[in-house]
Amino acid sequence: MASTTALSFEAALSACADAIERTLDGLLAATVQPGEIARPARLTDAMRYAALGGGKRLRPFLMVESAALFGASGEGVLRAASALEMVHCYSLVHDDLPAMDDDDLRRGRPTLHRHMDEAAAILAGDALLTFAFDVMADPATHAEPSVRADLVLGLARGSGLGGMAGGQMLDLEAEGRYDGGRPLTLDAPAIRRLQAMKTGALLAFAAEAGAILGRAAPAERKALLAYGKALGAAFQVADDILDVEASSAAMGKATGKDAARGKGTLVGILGLEEARAERDRLARDAVESLAGFGPAADRLREAARFAAERRS
Amino acid sequence: MASTTALSFEAALSACADAIERTLDGLLAATVQPGEIARPARLTDAMRYAALGGGKRLRPFLMVESAALFGASGEGVLRAASALEMVHCYSLVHDDLPAMDDDDLRRGRPTLHRHMDEAAAILAGDALLTFAFDVMADPATHAEPSVRADLVLGLARGSGLGGMAGGQMLDLEAEGRYDGGRPLTLDAPAIRRLQAMKTGALLAFAAEAGAILGRAAPAERKALLAYGKALGAAFQVADDILDVEASSAAMGKATGKDAARGKGTLVGILGLEEARAERDRLARDAVESLAGFGPAADRLREAARFAAERRS
Repeated sequence: MASTTALSFEAALSACADAIERTLDGLLAATVQPGEIARPARLTDAMRYAALGGGKRLRPFLMVESAALFGASGEGVLRAASALEMVHCYSLVHDDLPAMDDDDLRRGRPTLHRHMDEAAAILAGDALLTFAFDVMADPATHAEPSVRADLVLGLARGSGLGGMAGGQMLDLEAEGRYDGGRPLTLDAPAIRRLQAMKTGALLAFAAEAGAILGRAAPAERKALLAYGKALGAAFQVADDILDVEASSAAMGKATGKDAARGKGTLVGILGLEEARAERDRLARDAVESLAGFGPAADRLREAARFAAERRS
Repeated sequence: MASTTALSFEAALSACADAIERTLDGLLAATVQPGEIARPARLTDAMRYAALGGGKRLRPFLMVESAALFGASGEGVLRAASALEMVHCYSLVHDDLPAMDDDDLRRGRPTLHRHMDEAAAILAGDALLTFAFDVMADPATHAEPSVRADLVLGLARGSGLGGMAGGQMLDLEAEGRYDGGRPLTLDAPAIRRLQAMKTGALLAFAAEAGAILGRAAPAERKALLAYGKALGAAFQVADDILDVEASSAAMGKATGKDAARGKGTLVGILGLEEARAERDRLARDAVESLAGFGPAADRLREAARFAAERRS
């Protein structure tokens, strides 16, 4: 899929989501790959339930648009973007588990462990995470091995101990899962760090990965990473604001949950107005990170505003 | 660690286990890597509990010895072997969860979800799996990007939907988790396939990965893969036999569990004598796969016999 500058932002986001859906559908087909022994139907079904049919596919969009900036497009980019989305989907499945956030609904549908069972949800998450690295390392994704190795490394760093998984642990601690059940009183820097790990790291990688796929110069790659970090932070402050504001129907999941769990949020610490100001400042930072790129980066600039201003 | 032909097999296995323990200890230290934001102590602790202080480290041993056959040794090989062991350890943590096999003991210690809690066990498993790919893709593991990408791809194929994770799903089905709670009646080929996925694929990769690290010729890599597959199958038949024979004390976990769960095993279908004959035949197949390698492969030949004849 090439960059689609003639479309509105929403139409471009939707067109990308369709392309990702098709790519994920193909990757998660019953067809056994070399090195695989069989694809058990129940596990394939569980992975498809978790990965297909929903979501804005914002992370893939960021990767696709960032890659386009450096002249990379086509099936390989869609494969890499789909791999990233698999990691996002696995994290939702595991976070929804009874032992974690214990959610029954996700995008208006029963969560995977409610739809099937906990064992299937644990295994499907594991297998999606594993498959993401499979796809990233596959020559079909990029001809250059160093690009594939860099994609794997960036994805792993963004989603592991020092990124998303670590952020989820900090989140559980903040909710009072440990230390006698009392929620932790986090200050604003601690909340920002938690969010940078839990959500920001993967969004930042999405933008950086486009630069990796397009073999961008180090300074360009750094600019895309800075863009992704600022966008990710804006996205998460927006999420905190939405958690307070949005109705349950509009989100497709229970809201106000953070407050109900006693979790500190930036809105709680800064107040709604100051939180909105921080969100908008971060969105501007993201846009300014792209100062060197001219009109070709307009989609990414729109994406930063979209992440900050989204209503769901 | 170079190949250690002067030692007995048990001493060589033990020396390798020590080297892997040291490498894992270093990799799972508190030190934050580039691209990581922080390493939350509770998650690091959970990962260390899962990965350190136990196990024969048979998979790393196979990789180290296979790599030595092609002239590869040192820190990079130990890192790759430790990454593989992380995947093995993650699989034990998730398989032990209440929603899966619901085990309280592992290697004579409380399982991680008993030692900490289920959320920590799920997250530590996720983070170990993710970190394994991080280590494989890191330039510190091998200078050549194509080697790193091949390691990632092989590890992912062996441990994902078409390998270990898929095998665990087949195992849950075989136990009667689905279809109204009735255990499935698997025939011998279905049991062999289940075992090839659940256990065999990762053992086969262990041997193949040494060939990848040593940049072996395709025919040599194929021979190591064949060796690993046969060894993996022998290992699993030996496990079925041990499950029937061994005492609870010697194994450090409850035994006879497969039978208690109504699971079909090769011993149940073939009888003990025929199962022993199959195990020994597979061990011989493994040894014969190494026919082209001369005395340098003696350690691997011993490993095949060890996998078949082990008493725990």
